[in-house]
Amino acid sequence: MKKFINDPDDIVAELLEGFALANPRTVRLTGDRLVARAHPKAEGKVGVVTLGGSGHEPALSGFVGEGLLDVSVPGEIFAAPGPNRCLEAIKLADRGAGVLFVVLNHEGDVMSAKLTNQMVEQESLQVRTLITAEDISSAPRSNPEDRRGLVGCLPVYKIAGAAAEEGRSLDEVFEVAQRMERNMATLSVAVTPATHPATGAPFFALGDDEMEVGMGQHGEAGTGRMKLRGADETAAMMTDQLLADLEAKAGERVLVIVNGSGSTTLMEQFIVYRRVDQVLRERGIEPARALVGEYLTVQEQGGFQLFLARMDDELLGLWDAPCDSPYLTVS
Amino acid sequence: MKKFINDPDDIVAELLEGFALANPRTVRLTGDRLVARAHPKAEGKVGVVTLGGSGHEPALSGFVGEGLLDVSVPGEIFAAPGPNRCLEAIKLADRGAGVLFVVLNHEGDVMSAKLTNQMVEQESLQVRTLITAEDISSAPRSNPEDRRGLVGCLPVYKIAGAAAEEGRSLDEVFEVAQRMERNMATLSVAVTPATHPATGAPFFALGDDEMEVGMGQHGEAGTGRMKLRGADETAAMMTDQLLADLEAKAGERVLVIVNGSGSTTLMEQFIVYRRVDQVLRERGIEPARALVGEYLTVQEQGGFQLFLARMDDELLGLWDAPCDSPYLTVS
Repeated sequence: MKKFINDPDDIVAELLEGFALANPRTVRLTGDRLVARAHPKAEGKVGVVTLGGSGHEPALSGFVGEGLLDVSVPGEIFAAPGPNRCLEAIKLADRGAGVLFVVLNHEGDVMSAKLTNQMVEQESLQVRTLITAEDISSAPRSNPEDRRGLVGCLPVYKIAGAAAEEGRSLDEVFEVAQRMERNMATLSVAVTPATHPATGAPFFALGDDEMEVGMGQHGEAGTGRMKLRGADETAAMMTDQLLADLEAKAGERVLVIVNGSGSTTLMEQFIVYRRVDQVLRERGIEPARALVGEYLTVQEQGGFQLFLARMDDELLGLWDAPCDSPYLTVS
Repeated sequence: MKKFINDPDDIVAELLEGFALANPRTVRLTGDRLVARAHPKAEGKVGVVTLGGSGHEPALSGFVGEGLLDVSVPGEIFAAPGPNRCLEAIKLADRGAGVLFVVLNHEGDVMSAKLTNQMVEQESLQVRTLITAEDISSAPRSNPEDRRGLVGCLPVYKIAGAAAEEGRSLDEVFEVAQRMERNMATLSVAVTPATHPATGAPFFALGDDEMEVGMGQHGEAGTGRMKLRGADETAAMMTDQLLADLEAKAGERVLVIVNGSGSTTLMEQFIVYRRVDQVLRERGIEPARALVGEYLTVQEQGGFQLFLARMDDELLGLWDAPCDSPYLTVS
């Protein structure tokens, strides 16, 4: 493993320190390793908080900022943070209008969120929890409990953050963020493994001519190990599966995210996006907005996540609203 | 090689098409594969144009937009575009106040720029060419002709683009961009090679316990093959070399860019940035602004470029000015 780290035990502390030092205009480290907005949002507006393991940079803390997250709770490498820190984050983000707590559907994250919610009830804090679960490979749409949360957390942060900045109530923010969540679908593909930065162990093995479709966020086994295919064939296959899951129809508009996992280049991601865009138009579906780049990574894993979401006028308006965070800025 | 491409001959055409389809709000493909701003800048303002090989995404076309580049001329993979297309780009960017032509110091790029300038003179166009040459490993500061251009092109685009938006004259835009260029220094380190996306050939070989400091943009041999070092030691060594080259003194302010080459994670880049920031403060130098991420990549090469530049009030003001491009937005 050739990674620029120091003592493996210090990875998370040092990455957070470097991240905060590089972005003093937008974020600050505070309390027990919480990443918060440099300038808190106005009183009377709903806060937005998330939690999640480290090792997926820029997610999740890279999206703390105006119009996005108020506080993120970074865990250890690929491990959820404990409920005490989550409670601290919720209190920090609470500006008198309650807090939306966005949780990716992974066992540790959900367990930590449940424990946090028990503490929240004892303290009479106003919190609503939204679990993002959009990986179509891990379970059918009828069974969201078993669907993993992937890069779809980002548009949920964006929609919730924009709605909160508008001054909407907690119930209103929850409802529009939930509508985003219920209309999205993600599928991932991996070609080369990540290595755990602390242990140096690769996450999985794939033959030189193989790829795996439906890989989870941490390299969990997917649904389809298959022969390596070209960019166009892979993109078309994945787009079709996502459209089927969403039951998308001609005339609808979608948000597309091509999310690089790590070592797959932006050059490749553009080539993939090109074919996704073509397939959508062939189906009469409008690729209304797109993001192509690395948002939620898995170390240096080769591959990408393809995300599609059905959008309406309100969701598009919130997606286009200004935000200012280290790794997503809309002006 | 496990890359998501189709026919290797189509890589550049397809990546440009995908890039433009994903970013219709900010850029458009026009003419002979030129990437231009979606909405041209106002009449009477200086245009900013660059050229360069493909394979380094998001550079260079990812920085076309308001407050940055007006037009970029992407070449084939790692190859400069020809002068005819550069001339076309200059004419497209000319809004009646002349054009600044920014060229990274690589043999093919400079040759193409020279031929372009001969054509420019015949057509009586008002063009000034600025060559960026800041790789401290390839030649001493006294010999800029032999210094390679690395990620420093990005701040030069930013400063020139902001000055042009202010309505400054071509000479004024040139002068402030040149001041940026003369006050910057970059050093790169590589740990794992990129592969050429068309041929699959690796760019170089390094032992499992080796790294190379001073690698050029395309894996050209550097000045120092050495045993792999940890993040802190590598960062401190590189920072010291850059400060020595810049003859930086206590009390000065610098812009820092940690530019990931490809497969080195953002997690690692933050850990590196942390130590750079510490070393600067220990020397009494203020890290006034920072960017950490992938701006000018070399496919999936492992490693990064460390950039430092001495800043003054005017340069900082132009750096902070709004811009809106696919891969750099300041709001």
